[in-house]
Amino acid sequence: ICEYIRAKFPDVVLILDAKRGDIGDTAALYAREAFSRYGADAVTVNPYLGTDSLEPFLATPGKGTIVLCRTSNAGSSEFQSLEVDGEPVYLRVARTAAAKWRSIGECALVVGATYPEELARVRAIVGDMPILVPGIGAQGGDINAVVRAGATSPSSATTSQATTPAASRRGLIINSSRAILYASDGADFATAARDAALATRTAINAAS
Amino acid sequence: ICEYIRAKFPDVVLILDAKRGDIGDTAALYAREAFSRYGADAVTVNPYLGTDSLEPFLATPGKGTIVLCRTSNAGSSEFQSLEVDGEPVYLRVARTAAAKWRSIGECALVVGATYPEELARVRAIVGDMPILVPGIGAQGGDINAVVRAGATSPSSATTSQATTPAASRRGLIINSSRAILYASDGADFATAARDAALATRTAINAAS
Repeated sequence: ICEYIRAKFPDVVLILDAKRGDIGDTAALYAREAFSRYGADAVTVNPYLGTDSLEPFLATPGKGTIVLCRTSNAGSSEFQSLEVDGEPVYLRVARTAAAKWRSIGECALVVGATYPEELARVRAIVGDMPILVPGIGAQGGDINAVVRAGATSPSSATTSQATTPAASRRGLIINSSRAILYASDGADFATAARDAALATRTAINAAS
Repeated sequence: ICEYIRAKFPDVVLILDAKRGDIGDTAALYAREAFSRYGADAVTVNPYLGTDSLEPFLATPGKGTIVLCRTSNAGSSEFQSLEVDGEPVYLRVARTAAAKWRSIGECALVVGATYPEELARVRAIVGDMPILVPGIGAQGGDINAVVRAGATSPSSATTSQATTPAASRRGLIINSSRAILYASDGADFATAARDAALATRTAINAAS
């Protein structure tokens, strides 16, 4: 699949949503698999094993490492929201990303569209770091709430130029998978998937 | 590789150390990949996404789900040892396994040989659940310390039968990867790897 995408759409950013998480040597091989073998531009990784498990990804020049912070599923609160020194584990992940991981390489975080208030708390910690937001399609996350909570604030310079909301708000990679992949199970699949994707794009650009 | 092992050694227990961790639908497909496509008997999974991400693995009849609890790498304490209500996150994982996951299916935990005291704390919580212990080879974990801290206590019945330590102590799957895989880079690789594996087995059986 990666080879097909690379051949047909060489300019598309290719994110491998593999949620990797393993120790030193193995992590280094997974990073090579993702970036060299599959030619991905970025890969999602799990923080549970700590910084040394993320380092081989972060340290690969020109490639992105997207760390799971607060995932979109219902059970994600079970460990991610445990209170540590008065704040949840996922905010500790966000603080570590801002303080440490971004200085090693290109780092982003995953925060589910299903938790817009928590997205706002993460944004407050990580400044202008990119945030990948799954969960707006099949999982029912609200696009307007996501953009309000998660986009970086427009600088005064861009606001004064009276740009559109979409053009002045940045920092989010909003993802819809199943709502597009499963847009139709009939012969009209290609058209239905295209329509769903375009409608999603329009909704994101119109969000306020 | 899995196909080769299945064909040549049909009685060997095949554990896929894939450290999977993804939400609902995707987790279900990963479980099918591990158990049906690769024919694994068990697979390692990451708990960060919560119970709903483990359920498709646990609910597969006759297959084992081995959840990362306290991993063997140096950076594992970064998130796994954060204090929650007076005890570390990894013990919360152990409690959740004992209270919830083992009732859904065959569940085991991963605790690194490099942390024998923590292995003892996990064992105290999970009773007779199996624990997979990596880290005795290249990572330098001590086999005696692992067996003392992690094996289930022999019942009074078996102790009175004057069995050997190895026969009376159970509950551990002790793993060595790199010390065997990289036993030699010469033509004697097969012999060197076999010797390393046999020496490891002897040391485990002699542990006290």
